[in-house]
Amino acid sequence: MRIGFVGLGKMGAAMAQNLLRAGNELTVYNRSREKAEALAKEGAKTADSPAEVARASEAVFSMMPDDEAAEEITLGNAGIAAGLAKNAVHISSSTISIKESRHLEEEHEKRGSHLIAATVFGRPQAAESKQLVVVTAGRTEAVERCKPLLNAIGRRTFVVGEQPWQANLFKLFGNFMIATTLETFGEAFAGIRKAGADHHEFYEIMSELFGSPVYKNYGKIIADQEFEPAGFELKLGFKDVRLAMEAATEFNAPLPIANVLRDHFLSALAHGQEKLDWSSIGLVSARNSGLNT
Amino acid sequence: MRIGFVGLGKMGAAMAQNLLRAGNELTVYNRSREKAEALAKEGAKTADSPAEVARASEAVFSMMPDDEAAEEITLGNAGIAAGLAKNAVHISSSTISIKESRHLEEEHEKRGSHLIAATVFGRPQAAESKQLVVVTAGRTEAVERCKPLLNAIGRRTFVVGEQPWQANLFKLFGNFMIATTLETFGEAFAGIRKAGADHHEFYEIMSELFGSPVYKNYGKIIADQEFEPAGFELKLGFKDVRLAMEAATEFNAPLPIANVLRDHFLSALAHGQEKLDWSSIGLVSARNSGLNT
Amino acid sequence: MRIGFVGLGKMGAAMAQNLLRAGNELTVYNRSREKAEALAKEGAKTADSPAEVARASEAVFSMMPDDEAAEEITLGNAGIAAGLAKNAVHISSSTISIKESRHLEEEHEKRGSHLIAATVFGRPQAAESKQLVVVTAGRTEAVERCKPLLNAIGRRTFVVGEQPWQANLFKLFGNFMIATTLETFGEAFAGIRKAGADHHEFYEIMSELFGSPVYKNYGKIIADQEFEPAGFELKLGFKDVRLAMEAATEFNAPLPIANVLRDHFLSALAHGQEKLDWSSIGLVSARNSGLNT
Amino acid sequence: MRIGFVGLGKMGAAMAQNLLRAGNELTVYNRSREKAEALAKEGAKTADSPAEVARASEAVFSMMPDDEAAEEITLGNAGIAAGLAKNAVHISSSTISIKESRHLEEEHEKRGSHLIAATVFGRPQAAESKQLVVVTAGRTEAVERCKPLLNAIGRRTFVVGEQPWQANLFKLFGNFMIATTLETFGEAFAGIRKAGADHHEFYEIMSELFGSPVYKNYGKIIADQEFEPAGFELKLGFKDVRLAMEAATEFNAPLPIANVLRDHFLSALAHGQEKLDWSSIGLVSARNSGLNT
Repeated sequence: MRIGFVGLGKMGAAMAQNLLRAGNELTVYNRSREKAEALAKEGAKTADSPAEVARASEAVFSMMPDDEAAEEITLGNAGIAAGLAKNAVHISSSTISIKESRHLEEEHEKRGSHLIAATVFGRPQAAESKQLVVVTAGRTEAVERCKPLLNAIGRRTFVVGEQPWQANLFKLFGNFMIATTLETFGEAFAGIRKAGADHHEFYEIMSELFGSPVYKNYGKIIADQEFEPAGFELKLGFKDVRLAMEAATEFNAPLPIANVLRDHFLSALAHGQEKLDWSSIGLVSARNSGLNT
Repeated sequence: MRIGFVGLGKMGAAMAQNLLRAGNELTVYNRSREKAEALAKEGAKTADSPAEVARASEAVFSMMPDDEAAEEITLGNAGIAAGLAKNAVHISSSTISIKESRHLEEEHEKRGSHLIAATVFGRPQAAESKQLVVVTAGRTEAVERCKPLLNAIGRRTFVVGEQPWQANLFKLFGNFMIATTLETFGEAFAGIRKAGADHHEFYEIMSELFGSPVYKNYGKIIADQEFEPAGFELKLGFKDVRLAMEAATEFNAPLPIANVLRDHFLSALAHGQEKLDWSSIGLVSARNSGLNT
Repeated sequence: MRIGFVGLGKMGAAMAQNLLRAGNELTVYNRSREKAEALAKEGAKTADSPAEVARASEAVFSMMPDDEAAEEITLGNAGIAAGLAKNAVHISSSTISIKESRHLEEEHEKRGSHLIAATVFGRPQAAESKQLVVVTAGRTEAVERCKPLLNAIGRRTFVVGEQPWQANLFKLFGNFMIATTLETFGEAFAGIRKAGADHHEFYEIMSELFGSPVYKNYGKIIADQEFEPAGFELKLGFKDVRLAMEAATEFNAPLPIANVLRDHFLSALAHGQEKLDWSSIGLVSARNSGLNT
Repeated sequence: MRIGFVGLGKMGAAMAQNLLRAGNELTVYNRSREKAEALAKEGAKTADSPAEVARASEAVFSMMPDDEAAEEITLGNAGIAAGLAKNAVHISSSTISIKESRHLEEEHEKRGSHLIAATVFGRPQAAESKQLVVVTAGRTEAVERCKPLLNAIGRRTFVVGEQPWQANLFKLFGNFMIATTLETFGEAFAGIRKAGADHHEFYEIMSELFGSPVYKNYGKIIADQEFEPAGFELKLGFKDVRLAMEAATEFNAPLPIANVLRDHFLSALAHGQEKLDWSSIGLVSARNSGLNT
C-alpha cells in the first residue's frame, strides 16, 4: 500500500519504521528533516509538506503532540487534507481532544476524504517492538481498508465505533487510568517512606500482586525517582488528563480522581517538572509529606 | 508442625485447608462450629476456644474481620495469648490497624510469646488455589520458623520488616491501591456510558493494556455490575481504606486519592451497599453522573 | 455624560437604570427589545445595534453572560468596537475569562478605543439598590474618567490594576469564594440532617457567627431548598468556577476546593439543575448522603 | 450561683473571668497553678482537683483541648464526676467528639449528675469581651438552670437539642465552616500571587463583599502571613476537622471539602506548622503553587 506518515517523534518514527518493514511504500514528513532522513535510509521517500505526503498516499498516518499541531498539519497550508485524494484516509494517531477529532472529521468529509482515529497505548519501546495496543474508530469501510496497517504497528487492534472521536475518548480515558496508577504509587510510597518502611519492597509486592507491566515499569521508575529521560513528558500527561476531564465535562460526568491528578500535575509544573517523565507526579506527594525529593 | 487456626471465614477456611494438606497437624476454632466441622472431616481437630487451640499448637494463625474481633480472640477470655506456650507464635493474617498490631505484639511479648503478621492478598478463590501473595513481618527468628507455613498458603511470600505492623501497613496500602483501581473503573465507565460509547469495549482494552488479573477480574465485575455474591464486602473495603488513612495520618502523609475512595464508600453505604462487593463503589460514579444503576 | 448600555438582563437593566437616574444620557441595546423599551419609558434612547449605541456614547457598558456573547457584541458585525470613537471607553461588566478579556482589550487598542473591566458582585436586588461591589481595572486615565459612572452603580469601587483582565480574575476568584460558601453549607446541612439534628438551627448559628449577608442569604436559600426563581443560574455559576480554574491553570496554581465545586456542579447538571439557583449545588451533598431532596 | 471552672487556657480564663464579674461565686482548678492564681486575685477560690471544684459548686464549667483531657478531668481520679452533687451540672465547653460527649453524659447520668454541652465560637479576644456565640444542648431543665451563666460568657446563646452531643456536632461543623474559609483564602491568594496580582487588594474586596468579621480577621492574618502568636493552634484545628469527619462518617455523610482541609492540615504538620495559627493552612496552597513562603 502507498502510505504516508507525518510527525516523526519517538512514537511516530517507531511506528513508521514498522509500517515500512511490513512492506508498504512509505512517504514521510517531519518539521525537522533529520528524522525523515533516518527513515529515508531504510527506504522511505521524504516530502516537503504534509500535502505532498498525502498526494503520494492512499492512507496517511499522523502523530502530533496536541490539538494545535494536529490541526495545523491537517488543515493548514499544505496540510494533509489539501493533498488527499477522494476516498483516501487520514489515520490520526495523535492524542487530541474529542472536539478537535470531530472538527477534523467534518473537514475531511467536506473534501471527500475520510478520517479515522487510530490511537495507540504504549511507550516508545513498545512502539519499536510492535507491542502497541491500537484503538481505532471511524467509518467501517475505511477502518477495514486500514486494518493491515494497524496490525503492523501493534499487538492488538480494537475497533470501538464508527465515529473517530470515540477512539480519542478511549485513549484519553485510558491515559487517565494509567496516570491514576502513577499517582497512587506516589501517594503510597510517600506514606511508606514517612513510616520508615521500605517503599522498594512495597513496589515488589505491588508488582507481583497486580502482575501488570504498567505497574512493574512505572512503579520502578517512581520508586527509583528516575524521571529522565522522559518516556512521556509530564506536560503532555497533564494535557491528556485535562482533555479527559474536558470530554467528561461535555457529558456531565465528574471524574474525582482526575481532580487529584490535575492538581498534582499543576503543582509539578509549578516546580519545574514539565520535561520530566509524567510519572514524576509522584514527587508531589513526597513534597506534600515533607520528604526530601 | 502442630498448628492452629482461629477464624474460618471464606479466606480462613481455604487457608486452613491448604495448611492441613501440607501435612501439618491442625487444630481449629470458629465461633460458629459448622465451619470447624467441615475441616474436621478432612482431619483437623476442633477446639472450644482460641486458648485451647493455642495450647495444642506451636503456631496459631488467626483471620478476623477487624480490630475488635482480632483483639477479642487474642486477648479476650480464653484468647490465643492465654494459651500459647513460651516462644510459640501467633500468626495474624487479619487486616487490622497498625495500632492494633503494635498492641497485640506488646501483649504477646509481655507473656513470652510472639506475634508475626502474615497478611494476604487475594480473593477466596486465590486462597483455595494457594495463589495468595503473603506479606509478613516480625522477629526474624519467628518468621523463619513459620516460613514453611506461609509458603503453604500462597504463591509468594514477602518479608518486609521485623515489626509486625509493617506488614499490616503494606496490606492496608495494597488495598488502597486495589480500591483505587475499582474507583477509576467506576469513574471511567460512567463517563463513557454518558458519552454513549461502549464501556464493555473500554474494559476489554484496559484488560489488554494493563495485563493484570486485578484489572481483568474487577473490571468485568464493575462493567457487568455483578456485585453479588460479594468476594469482599464493601463495608470491609471501607474499613481498610480508613485504616490506611489512619496510618498515613500518624506519619503526616496525605493520601488524596483515598479521600475520593472514602467519600464514595460513604455514599455507597448511605445507599445500602454495605454487603455488596466493594467494587460496587463504581455505582457511586454512575449515580453522580445521573445514570440509572 | 453620554453613555451606553448593551445587555439588559436582570443585572444589566438594574445597573442601566441607576446610571440613568444619576443623570447620564443613556442609549441602550438588548437583543430582545422589550427590556430596552422598559428603560426607554424612563428616558433612555434605544438603538438597533451595539455599534449604534457606541456611536452615540463616550462610554459603553456591557453585561453579557459569557465569552462568546461578550465577543459577539464587541467584535461582531455592528459591535461596540465598530462604533466607538477614538479614546472612547468600553466598560465590560461581564464575567468572562481572563483570556477573552485580554483579547477584547487588544482589539480595542488596535482601533484606538479602550477597554476597562468593571466587574460587579451582588445579586439583582443589590444591583437595583446600588449596593454592588465594583471591581475595576484598566488604563488609569480611562478608569478615572469612568469613576463617576462606577460610583453610580455600586456601594464601593475597587481599582485593582491597569490591565482589565486583573478585574476579571478577581471577579472569578470572588465567585469561587462564594461558591465555596454554598458548597460548605450543602455539606454541613447534609451531615446534620443525617444526624437527625436541625439544620435550620445550624443555619441560624452560622448566620450569627459569620455575620455576613452572603451566609445569611444563601444559607437560608439552601436550608429551605428554595432554588427557584434563580438569582443566578447554576450553569452560570459552573461556568465561573471553570473560568477561575482555567485562570489558575495558566499560572500553575491548583485550587483543590474548586475541584469539589466543579464535580458537584457537574453532578447537579447531570440531574437537571442548570436553571435552578447555583446554591442548589447543596442538593448534591444531600443526594450523596442518601437523603431525599 | 456557686460555680466552678476547670481548664484555664486562654479561652477558659477569659470565660471564667466573665462568670466571676457577673457576680457568681467561683472556684477554679488548672493543672498549672499560675492561671488559677490570677483569677484568685479577682476573687475566685482555688481548688486542688476537679473533684474539689465540683464539691463546691452547683455547676462546673470545663474547657479542655481534647477528648483525652476532657475524659481525664471528668472521670479520672478526683475528676468532676466524683465531686458533683446529685442533680448538679457539668457544663462542658470543650470541643470534643460526639462519641466522647455521649460517653461523658452516660457516666454523669449513672451518678445522678448531668452533663450539658455549651460549646463556644470565638477567639480569645471574643471570650474576653463577652462576644462568644454559645451553642448548648442537654436536658431542658439543666440548660434552663444554667442559662444565666451562658448569657454571662457570650453575645448570644443557641439551644440546639436535648442531647449534649448535638451541641458538639454543631461546634465541629461550625469549625469545619470556618476552616473552609481559611483554606479558600489560601487557595485564592496563591492563585492571585502567581498571576502577579495584589492579593491584599483581593482581601480588601472579600472583606467588603462578605462583610464578615471571620473573613476580615482571618483574611488579614493569611494575607500578611502573621501566624504567630497562634489564636488557635493548627494541630487543634486539624483535630476538629477530623472529629467533624468522624461524626459525619457515623451518619454516612461525605464531606468532600473536609478532605481538602484534612490533607492540607496534614501537609502543614509535615512542614512543622503544628503550633502556628490554624489559618497557616494557607501556606500549603502557596507551597503547592511553587511560591516562596
